[in-house]
Amino acid sequence: MEQVSSNRSHGGTQGVYTHQSRTTRTAMTFSVFVPGHAEGAKLPVLWYLSGLTCTHANVTEKGEYRAACAKAGVIFIAPDTSPRGDAVPDDEGYDFGMGAGFYVDATESPWAANFRMRSYVEDELPALIGAQFPMADMTRQGITGHSMGGHGALTVALRNPGRFRSVSAFSPIVSPINCPWGEKALGGYLGKDRAAWRPYDACALIEDGARLPSLLVDQGDADNFLHEQLKTGLLVMACRKAGIAATIRMQPGYDHSYFFISTFMAEHVAWHAERLTA
Amino acid sequence: MEQVSSNRSHGGTQGVYTHQSRTTRTAMTFSVFVPGHAEGAKLPVLWYLSGLTCTHANVTEKGEYRAACAKAGVIFIAPDTSPRGDAVPDDEGYDFGMGAGFYVDATESPWAANFRMRSYVEDELPALIGAQFPMADMTRQGITGHSMGGHGALTVALRNPGRFRSVSAFSPIVSPINCPWGEKALGGYLGKDRAAWRPYDACALIEDGARLPSLLVDQGDADNFLHEQLKTGLLVMACRKAGIAATIRMQPGYDHSYFFISTFMAEHVAWHAERLTA
Repeated sequence: MEQVSSNRSHGGTQGVYTHQSRTTRTAMTFSVFVPGHAEGAKLPVLWYLSGLTCTHANVTEKGEYRAACAKAGVIFIAPDTSPRGDAVPDDEGYDFGMGAGFYVDATESPWAANFRMRSYVEDELPALIGAQFPMADMTRQGITGHSMGGHGALTVALRNPGRFRSVSAFSPIVSPINCPWGEKALGGYLGKDRAAWRPYDACALIEDGARLPSLLVDQGDADNFLHEQLKTGLLVMACRKAGIAATIRMQPGYDHSYFFISTFMAEHVAWHAERLTA
Repeated sequence: MEQVSSNRSHGGTQGVYTHQSRTTRTAMTFSVFVPGHAEGAKLPVLWYLSGLTCTHANVTEKGEYRAACAKAGVIFIAPDTSPRGDAVPDDEGYDFGMGAGFYVDATESPWAANFRMRSYVEDELPALIGAQFPMADMTRQGITGHSMGGHGALTVALRNPGRFRSVSAFSPIVSPINCPWGEKALGGYLGKDRAAWRPYDACALIEDGARLPSLLVDQGDADNFLHEQLKTGLLVMACRKAGIAATIRMQPGYDHSYFFISTFMAEHVAWHAERLTA
């Protein structure tokens, strides 16, 4: 692991790092904010998975999480959204290929060689963080994300029961099986057999018996993607049917941008911190 | 004035606007955050002048001011740092020409036709804001800025006694007469006669009798530009000699970036609000 940059911020350290990933077979970049802390202290970890077209940089610059994480003593980690590089296959659309890994392990050619973001965020990166950041308490993890990354947060948490004490999302794609973004991505990465898509669909995972300890979701009602792509209502129904305690809030006037995310970020961080430090 | 974008954020509205400036003879873009407020309410205004290479967008995306402005009920305005466009003269350096207007009215050719950022931020833009934003109380204004924009905030306030109730800065260039950035810019825009530079030098203005009601400055001690360009110590001495009540804080470990600015932004907004709402 190499440090790309390190900046003191809000009493802690905002770092950006790169490493050669054996999972994606590319260099991968991510950011970590470590709040100021006493020597030897162990701090809980909050993962943030980003949306389509983003790298680690979008939330790192525009997410407004550092003040809240510093106050709560929570480490904040932002991975990239896909492998990148000249040797990595890509698609002309913004919603498939680079910048659009969808947190799946691709099985279709030519994507299968590099597009393994499920394994990367579930296995390789947590192991790296545990090894390289001795103050990170990997027994206390929370996860959140935005849009495609909200889908990522929900599905990673649903597939790994017991790993996360807290799960939240900002304007998540709640059922990629049922929207154009998801059909393109899951069809492209996983092939035509829709049965193979279900482990990558939050609503389907819940239907199939997976559970979350609790859930906080914020969704802007002026979000252009709400009705065609995000379909928050499907998650409301799935949680109700499964008896999952969920706070799913429609926020009047808010759109899909970081102006929305940053508005509710401090509340999400505090909500995670409450569960991670209890 | 045309609206470029409008996003709901932190309970208010983050807008970006463009207008044809008669001062710079170009289109000019700026951002305005208006907190949520009761109909008919009048809110104080905080100006933020940006640093070298920046547009309105840097602080708008990375400044983390909206939560604090929403809480305090303060409008936040971020102008651009220079005229821009194909017809505008430019320089190869990042520190002169476009993105580097230095908040002066140029007198030298070819700059004098467009590079009139002093008149733009002192006269034209405040008049436009007063006319277009009925909730802006132009009798209650504060001003701040970063680096070249800290220089701008200090010198605009010093030249306009009584206009600003509160003045602060993040890592300002405190004496452009005495640093390479300033010598290049003031020499280029104003010519070789250094007497013409003094109205654009905070320390010289104070020496020449100009005063501020009070002043808050934050400066990172790990800022690469501190010793050669910013020279905070000169401002400390000038304020002491002139009896200006100034809080000038060296912040250990912080650099020149928005990771630094955003750390102390909420404190600056609260400090201005205290003086603007008294």
